[in-house]
Amino acid sequence: MKNLDCINTLINCFTRLPGVGYKTAERYAYKIIESDPESVDDFCKALKNVKTHVKLCKSCGNFTDTDAQCKICMQRSSSGIICVVRDPRDAIAIEKSGAFKGTYHVLHGVISPLDKKGPDDINLKSLMVRVREEKTKEVIIATSPTVEGEATANYIAVLIKPLGIRVTRLAQGLALGTNLEYADEVTLGAAINNRITI
Amino acid sequence: MKNLDCINTLINCFTRLPGVGYKTAERYAYKIIESDPESVDDFCKALKNVKTHVKLCKSCGNFTDTDAQCKICMQRSSSGIICVVRDPRDAIAIEKSGAFKGTYHVLHGVISPLDKKGPDDINLKSLMVRVREEKTKEVIIATSPTVEGEATANYIAVLIKPLGIRVTRLAQGLALGTNLEYADEVTLGAAINNRITI
Repeated sequence: MKNLDCINTLINCFTRLPGVGYKTAERYAYKIIESDPESVDDFCKALKNVKTHVKLCKSCGNFTDTDAQCKICMQRSSSGIICVVRDPRDAIAIEKSGAFKGTYHVLHGVISPLDKKGPDDINLKSLMVRVREEKTKEVIIATSPTVEGEATANYIAVLIKPLGIRVTRLAQGLALGTNLEYADEVTLGAAINNRITI
Repeated sequence: MKNLDCINTLINCFTRLPGVGYKTAERYAYKIIESDPESVDDFCKALKNVKTHVKLCKSCGNFTDTDAQCKICMQRSSSGIICVVRDPRDAIAIEKSGAFKGTYHVLHGVISPLDKKGPDDINLKSLMVRVREEKTKEVIIATSPTVEGEATANYIAVLIKPLGIRVTRLAQGLALGTNLEYADEVTLGAAINNRITI
């Protein structure tokens, strides 16, 4: 005895989600079988709505439900500061911090030769156009402090610096609220090298 | 800035799946946005198909795509042995072992007072009908060796034993391939108490 064909098809669909293996997908599928038809209909509607309504903002590349610019681009275009992030989630995280009041630019990926992703595979050309047209004063490169994130940040910095625009990177050091003894040695090294006068 | 409304709706749908919190649901939703429209259509179809095609077998309560009995009930009704399991996944697991050639009976849950699940909330009445009508020789109670599983097994045994039918339970002891020193003390105790003459 195996699962029914229609259950197997659903399990296969679930395994395409990130981090979902066969056993987890099976649990999800059984949950769907047990749930009431209305909630499954809602699920289908939500899936389709996302595919039809979510578009990319023409200037920053972030998700938007309008055909023109996203809200942030419309409201803050005069700020002169662009924060470059890897994907829309990172922009949301920075927005939640409340510490940034400029516009964003979403790369939709980072340069990663191992994944065959070069500078042309991310949303970089439109950044160069924006930097020139929007009288930008500063570009904050907020990619993650990983190998790919650092490489991408350096690549972008080399392109933008010659234009006479200030290029900055998010500070690297101890995360707030952590215990010093549990910080890894690389982070601790960065925190010492980047120490601040008080 | 927050996620768009349609993305939030999809995230909420995903959080209803077992073990999925907000962050995981967000990852799933972003994966859906990135995937091509065809695969999202396939996903919707698979969800709806499962809800329309999957039915419960009239005799054993297992999932089936026919209106009558499931395949196993049709092929093995003369075996005289019924294996009682908590849900369809357990029946699949036992089928994979290849050690059982009788029919199943799926309870769709176990007796659990904490979850307000009593004997009337699981598929138990139809088991009693089957036991009487099908000339059953043996009932194997294959619920998990947890508190609720044991309680359910005992409850069913008390009902069936007076009918003069053999009632058995899955053996409890060391799992094959495990290291004795890592076995927990309760399992080890059970393995000693249930020791077998060789």
